Amino acid sequence: MTSHPSPITPLSQATVVIVGLGLMGASLGYDLRGRCRRVIGVVRRPEALDAALAAGCADEVTLDAAAAVAAGDLVVLAAPVRTLLRQITGLGPLLRPDGILIDMGSTKAAICQAMEALPAHVQAIGGHPMCGKEKSGLEAAEPGLFRGCTFVLCPLPRTTPATLALIHEMIDCIAARPLVLEPERHDRLVAAISHLPYLNAAGLVAHVMAVAETDPTVWEVAASGFRDSSRVAASDVTMLLDILLTNRTAVLAAMADYESRMDLFRQALAQEDEAALRALLEPVAAARREWQQLKVKG
Amino acid sequence: MTSHPSPITPLSQATVVIVGLGLMGASLGYDLRGRCRRVIGVVRRPEALDAALAAGCADEVTLDAAAAVAAGDLVVLAAPVRTLLRQITGLGPLLRPDGILIDMGSTKAAICQAMEALPAHVQAIGGHPMCGKEKSGLEAAEPGLFRGCTFVLCPLPRTTPATLALIHEMIDCIAARPLVLEPERHDRLVAAISHLPYLNAAGLVAHVMAVAETDPTVWEVAASGFRDSSRVAASDVTMLLDILLTNRTAVLAAMADYESRMDLFRQALAQEDEAALRALLEPVAAARREWQQLKVKG
Repeated sequence: MTSHPSPITPLSQATVVIVGLGLMGASLGYDLRGRCRRVIGVVRRPEALDAALAAGCADEVTLDAAAAVAAGDLVVLAAPVRTLLRQITGLGPLLRPDGILIDMGSTKAAICQAMEALPAHVQAIGGHPMCGKEKSGLEAAEPGLFRGCTFVLCPLPRTTPATLALIHEMIDCIAARPLVLEPERHDRLVAAISHLPYLNAAGLVAHVMAVAETDPTVWEVAASGFRDSSRVAASDVTMLLDILLTNRTAVLAAMADYESRMDLFRQALAQEDEAALRALLEPVAAARREWQQLKVKG
Repeated sequence: MTSHPSPITPLSQATVVIVGLGLMGASLGYDLRGRCRRVIGVVRRPEALDAALAAGCADEVTLDAAAAVAAGDLVVLAAPVRTLLRQITGLGPLLRPDGILIDMGSTKAAICQAMEALPAHVQAIGGHPMCGKEKSGLEAAEPGLFRGCTFVLCPLPRTTPATLALIHEMIDCIAARPLVLEPERHDRLVAAISHLPYLNAAGLVAHVMAVAETDPTVWEVAASGFRDSSRVAASDVTMLLDILLTNRTAVLAAMADYESRMDLFRQALAQEDEAALRALLEPVAAARREWQQLKVKG
């Protein structure tokens, strides 16, 4: 399916190590089990061992990250971004010379910078499957989570064609669509379509909470519009703090531009300038409808 | 099911006239057909007659609003708010003495004010079923649209118990939940949970459009978070202009409070104050999860 050269170890014969069996890691495990030699899952808490085995997202589950990483042909790091930064530094050098390291973190510039600093023998590439949920953890994981989603790849200068070939095999296997982006470009784009919407949703909920202080009925009248607009505000805060703090510049720039758009709406509404308000809102409605059409086709 | 006295004409014997067979009007027609004597739908364009009859949302469909309104035991106005204001003034006086007028408009203060100005014989009450879709029109209408949704009622000082009884019968029939609110209170609450989210979504899409000017790939990476956060930005602009312009004061106040919340996020992020950011975001995530739980139970 790809035009890349063969990987050194094809996926079907690879030992895949997934460090972290939360939403992303466990979902990947479900999809890769039976499609590679074996999936070894690494968890941090002893009580997570049985749950992960029982769920069936890995062939083996261990607490020993170092041993697992050293045994892997493909090592996938699945954790919040700042945990990833520590894991890249701590576990990256333990990969065997033909082992490949990829992460599934939500921001890419800091991650790829940490990967660049790894010993020269380590093959590494940044990754970000664009399929969130507001729920996290093993319980939220499911087979097929990545189906049809965009899987961003940020190759390093050192990333070889053989590494890219194995990664593309993995992406084929989970039915995602690969998209190669520079790390900084990735971070700018996700600030717009993911991190800003999170803060907007959080700001909306904060406003409704303020209204509820004097009139709790506001929660009762909230319907599907509020439900969808605010959904991502329920996301895991620790994960989001990692994202926001490792993508601060791009997020602040997105917030500033967004605020300027809101200010145009505000001015037109304050002046009861219907024509101006319509001229602002019609292209927005058209663009949103067009995007939906493209997504349905895509 | 209700503790109200009997209506003068019970729903089962009532002629229900629905003026406007868009999303709301036609959906109501589907649910009421067979549960009342007959449903007469009123449309504006001749070419809509056949489509409405074929869809089956009314027993009869006519262009003659005046004649239909005069024949109705219950007259339901289903149109954008500023059209409603004209219809209340133009059609309201044509109701027969025991006829009842209700609207399904998205803002209530201006509507109820117009209803107050009707001749003393007209029984009228403001209504707002809280179940939108970003799609509008007959094609988007469906049986069961109102099931489980909150149906806000704004009785006027003149509204009699018998009128309320018939309206409660109608709300029982479509399986909605009635909620009585003062018009101004309704408008303040929906500014928070509906009109502000619309502007937020529009501002988000406007920002993404600006990013797309130099990097159209942004549309490609947009995933479920963007999809849900921006969904209502695709709403019918004409309908929204009516809403925003008839609820201007409450919407501007909501925007100002929202902006102050966003500013707290912005400051904490700019200062890399993780503790402050967490203290702002954790209660928001908890409140959103709690609301979801309540909705699932409710």
